[in-house]
Amino acid sequence: MRVYLDNNATTIVDPHVFAEMEPYFVQRYGNPNSLHAFASETHPALKDAMEKIYAGIHAPKEDSVVITSCATESNNWVLKSIYFEYILTGRKNHIIVSEVEHPSVIATAKFIESMGCKVTYLPINHEGMIDPQTVRDSITDKTALVSVMWANNETGAIFPVQEIGAICAEYNVPFHTDAVQAIGKTPVDVQSLNVDYLTFSAHKFHGPKGVGALYMKKGRELSPLLHGGSQMGGYRSGTLNVPGIVGMGKAMEQAIDALDYEMSDVREMRDAFEDELLKIPDTFVVTPREKRTPNTILISFRGIEGESMLWDLNRAGIGASTGSACASEDLESNPVMEAIGADADLAHTAVRFSLSRYTTQEELDYALEVVKKAVERLRGISSSYAYAPEGHDSGLDAHH
Amino acid sequence: MRVYLDNNATTIVDPHVFAEMEPYFVQRYGNPNSLHAFASETHPALKDAMEKIYAGIHAPKEDSVVITSCATESNNWVLKSIYFEYILTGRKNHIIVSEVEHPSVIATAKFIESMGCKVTYLPINHEGMIDPQTVRDSITDKTALVSVMWANNETGAIFPVQEIGAICAEYNVPFHTDAVQAIGKTPVDVQSLNVDYLTFSAHKFHGPKGVGALYMKKGRELSPLLHGGSQMGGYRSGTLNVPGIVGMGKAMEQAIDALDYEMSDVREMRDAFEDELLKIPDTFVVTPREKRTPNTILISFRGIEGESMLWDLNRAGIGASTGSACASEDLESNPVMEAIGADADLAHTAVRFSLSRYTTQEELDYALEVVKKAVERLRGISSSYAYAPEGHDSGLDAHH
Repeated sequence: MRVYLDNNATTIVDPHVFAEMEPYFVQRYGNPNSLHAFASETHPALKDAMEKIYAGIHAPKEDSVVITSCATESNNWVLKSIYFEYILTGRKNHIIVSEVEHPSVIATAKFIESMGCKVTYLPINHEGMIDPQTVRDSITDKTALVSVMWANNETGAIFPVQEIGAICAEYNVPFHTDAVQAIGKTPVDVQSLNVDYLTFSAHKFHGPKGVGALYMKKGRELSPLLHGGSQMGGYRSGTLNVPGIVGMGKAMEQAIDALDYEMSDVREMRDAFEDELLKIPDTFVVTPREKRTPNTILISFRGIEGESMLWDLNRAGIGASTGSACASEDLESNPVMEAIGADADLAHTAVRFSLSRYTTQEELDYALEVVKKAVERLRGISSSYAYAPEGHDSGLDAHH
Repeated sequence: MRVYLDNNATTIVDPHVFAEMEPYFVQRYGNPNSLHAFASETHPALKDAMEKIYAGIHAPKEDSVVITSCATESNNWVLKSIYFEYILTGRKNHIIVSEVEHPSVIATAKFIESMGCKVTYLPINHEGMIDPQTVRDSITDKTALVSVMWANNETGAIFPVQEIGAICAEYNVPFHTDAVQAIGKTPVDVQSLNVDYLTFSAHKFHGPKGVGALYMKKGRELSPLLHGGSQMGGYRSGTLNVPGIVGMGKAMEQAIDALDYEMSDVREMRDAFEDELLKIPDTFVVTPREKRTPNTILISFRGIEGESMLWDLNRAGIGASTGSACASEDLESNPVMEAIGADADLAHTAVRFSLSRYTTQEELDYALEVVKKAVERLRGISSSYAYAPEGHDSGLDAHH
């Protein structure tokens, strides 16, 4: 049996999404910016896709949704344009990000920090949550941007973007949120809160890889990261990725249609699976489940290296993760586990299971059996578990 | 009959290319950076694709070919990283580009010019060619980059990159060439000349949209434009676009296989078509055909607005262009025509026909008849042609 439980890393392309994309490779291949029928025959599908994308995040017409190549590009765009507009010109000197942002925000923040920008890295608490008060405490009259993700890729923690947005509005500081892990898992309505920039990526909600977007509120438009032929209203140049955009539109429509199912059925399956996992002794889950996206579990099995667990899971046909795929080539400890203050030993034991609407109960039943056997086998050969058995103080609240 | 003669704007995806890509949407959808079989089952195809791409431009293993989302990204990357490394730090203050670079180079050059970089825009001569001597004359000890395209998108002119590369080597100035219009049309071997950075894009050689690349010579590696999860050796972050990369690999292989056909059969068809077009009175082609890529004709029909000609062609099912699709939403005069010093009237009359290996003789025979009728109809209603009939001095050499 093959079981895919790494949906926070990427998702299967929905066959209906692929079916919508398919005609735009070999049949309708025109460049939409050309002046002939080979171009214009792509326009209805592009318009339809853009309408679905706007509708999916409730973006009003006067705001901009700009297609990019991925969330990494969108995140780099926001921070670097803020750098060029505010930091380099000396108008501001400071940005605020959480310490558990995706690497594409953290690495970009560190880059502009190396160019002279002050960066505040907001801590997370023992539940893996951001306290909005820390945003208020960090804002100065020189703050050019606050960037806090909507939902964390590791724990699934849904951050208080409503409250953070309100604080940013109060101080008139632009607010960016990376909503990559939120779309299709929790309602995302850019009009329901103060948000100026919002990042998302098709391949996290059953669309294709290689296409993402950045929402920008009217009046907060950024200068481009990619200059050139003035596609996308001048905000992002480059020949339009027609099948990618068509695919993202369909995927967005389906994600919205499936949102109730994610928030009820997927959540129930996740919760039941988590209940069973937590019956295994010496297991810890960080963020309370009611504060998480419905599909994610980050769980530590004391005494077991996360990579060892992945190895056993993989041999049994199960794909899971020790955290962000964007950092998984380095065998480092989980950054969220480190951020909440877990000891180094425990930070290496985190395993992430992330479900999707394609996940079945049968798959989870099978996965549970495999996990149990793996725990038994791996703890049997674990020196750290032998030295610090059951009952050892982890320094963490376990949310059983 | 539908005839696509706008292959410099974009190309049909080869059905064999699409067939190679197809399994990587719904079947093998893993994130290549994850640690399980869903990820690793994408690795052989990625490795194979990268090998084909390296082989296609004769890149040695020690050099880097980094996948990007498009040529626009690759071009922005080179100029902006040069800006960050040399200009912003004050080590250098100057770059050199040709005045007929693609908008993604020109607009980026203007952006960094606005940030204090000096930019020399090299002129083209009456044949639409660059004189390498102008590069030598422009280099100073503060020059951080020379960027001159391999082949021009408008005229097809193949620029003297060998000579320009040699001059750059002599002065130890990094040399970038945008080879978007060269791949598959003329031999591209990065070892045959001094080139440090080379841009290309899959959708110009029958690969998919949304995937491009930047070649970087060992020792000349740039800091990233997109920071994040350290994919692509840290040079370009973002989840790998697996089907896009697989498609580009196959497209590169096929472009190399078809190069002889392009340089013989496509060239012969192009030349015969051009001969017939030039029999129409008051027609002008800028660059001598032996100095052009084998597929491109930029031709002026005196007295006829380029857009009017496109309209008549389009009504008959023929897709052509007045120039770069990346600038075609503005009804401006052709920038190359302006650059060679054509009067404003003539600069608006340029029409670009760009063939591919899919172009047939039957299609060109049909297109010729359509063009002839369009010329007759449009000159019949052209006031500028009535006032300045046959024999008017264009200020240009016509290459009949």
